[in-house]
Amino acid sequence: MVGVHAIYNGTVILAKDAVVEVTQREVQFGFSTYEALRVIKGHAVHLEDHLTRLENSCLGIKLVHPFTKQQISTWVYDLIEKDAIQEASLRIQLYGGTQPQLFVLASALLSYPDTHYTQGVKAITFLGERLYPSCKTGNLLLNYMALEEARSQGCFEALLVDRHQKVLEGTRSNFFAFKEKNLYTAADEQVLLGITRDRVIKAARQLGFSVIFDAPAKEDIAGGLYDEVFISSTSMAAMPLSRVDDRLFPGPFEKTLAITKLVRGWELDD
Amino acid sequence: MVGVHAIYNGTVILAKDAVVEVTQREVQFGFSTYEALRVIKGHAVHLEDHLTRLENSCLGIKLVHPFTKQQISTWVYDLIEKDAIQEASLRIQLYGGTQPQLFVLASALLSYPDTHYTQGVKAITFLGERLYPSCKTGNLLLNYMALEEARSQGCFEALLVDRHQKVLEGTRSNFFAFKEKNLYTAADEQVLLGITRDRVIKAARQLGFSVIFDAPAKEDIAGGLYDEVFISSTSMAAMPLSRVDDRLFPGPFEKTLAITKLVRGWELDD
Repeated sequence: MVGVHAIYNGTVILAKDAVVEVTQREVQFGFSTYEALRVIKGHAVHLEDHLTRLENSCLGIKLVHPFTKQQISTWVYDLIEKDAIQEASLRIQLYGGTQPQLFVLASALLSYPDTHYTQGVKAITFLGERLYPSCKTGNLLLNYMALEEARSQGCFEALLVDRHQKVLEGTRSNFFAFKEKNLYTAADEQVLLGITRDRVIKAARQLGFSVIFDAPAKEDIAGGLYDEVFISSTSMAAMPLSRVDDRLFPGPFEKTLAITKLVRGWELDD
Repeated sequence: MVGVHAIYNGTVILAKDAVVEVTQREVQFGFSTYEALRVIKGHAVHLEDHLTRLENSCLGIKLVHPFTKQQISTWVYDLIEKDAIQEASLRIQLYGGTQPQLFVLASALLSYPDTHYTQGVKAITFLGERLYPSCKTGNLLLNYMALEEARSQGCFEALLVDRHQKVLEGTRSNFFAFKEKNLYTAADEQVLLGITRDRVIKAARQLGFSVIFDAPAKEDIAGGLYDEVFISSTSMAAMPLSRVDDRLFPGPFEKTLAITKLVRGWELDD
């Protein structure tokens, strides 16, 4: 059953024993990296890509550890087998330091109601820049606070706006904006390199759109320059936004949903 | 004995049981605040000030919790009594969320050799801005990485430089620079409001210096505009810098050491 066990440095443990010491410096400083992925039909979706990104996150913050991609991959499937997991959201959590600690954790598959896709979801913009944006680390206070602010306003996501008033990404998603046959998104080095972002870009091109790596300006979104906007993540695929701050985007979000359909179709390919 | 026990939400536990679950969102996101203080002769130094700052850090990041200053103060002395602590470095660590978790942890008193004061210590500069600088939170990856970089260069501290090339503070200290009878430091809203920073400012004024809240420019430090520079923290008091990047500051650091003497003298006053 999902969530009964976990893996700690290669050993199966009870999930409730997946703990870290509060006195550990790396825990206190968030000197950690992680990955979040989906298990579908017992298959860890795009695992190789997630493990490569984990390596890159570690390189980016100089987190040295002894675990190979092959080892971690084995541990992921050890957990899938142990709890006979068919569907799950899975987290690989790695703390650095002199004694690196790697956990593999499973929880119920994160999924969203159909209405999120047919009606879209609402987002706010939130001023703030992530440190080392291309690394997936434990330095997530900005993301936490921006999302709390969104939720307090009845919104689903907060879009982070940089000092130049460009909308770069969501707190747990990448951000895209259509203007007719062009799809705009931030440049690689400005954002988290989403595994799903890659697929979204591939899908958009396959559907005949041009992908332009230039982050939309907040005022252009407010001013109505874009005709369809969406966020993407492993759990969301491409999810349409019905509103960004005061700017409304009426459905039916045809372009976004066409992308989601392609992206979901590729989940069992690797 | 220091470090045998800890306090968890008011209850005495074994220090080895001071753990948090890796699956907890607040742990993963570093949605936490903390304080580090000294116990000297069984007395928690400037405890009231630390508890006030903890409250302010929580307000700053909207971390809601039920613990009062009076309760936490009692728990601090519960731990001091339980382990018969005379001297220690003490950490109050608070995780937010729906079930806030507050730990009081003690470890051997952090102190430095006399030579750090007589000869000074070396620092590098490191480009990077802290999020919510006046809040003491778990969002510390920048501090971790900057300090690691300093240590890899054989230095004791890294000084964080903002986008305007101003030297604001250290990774675990405040930063000050003397120019004759003037003492320069960053404005309150730019930095962590160190408990010791307050005392340093008070001491400087008592010694006849003018304190000017204008962060030194990196190029002015490199160019030799300042005659004495130091860092301050609870564990360091005022510690002279013998070097910042390539700029040398020869001793005997008379002004800095006069400040340390006053600051240390006030530790048992409250």
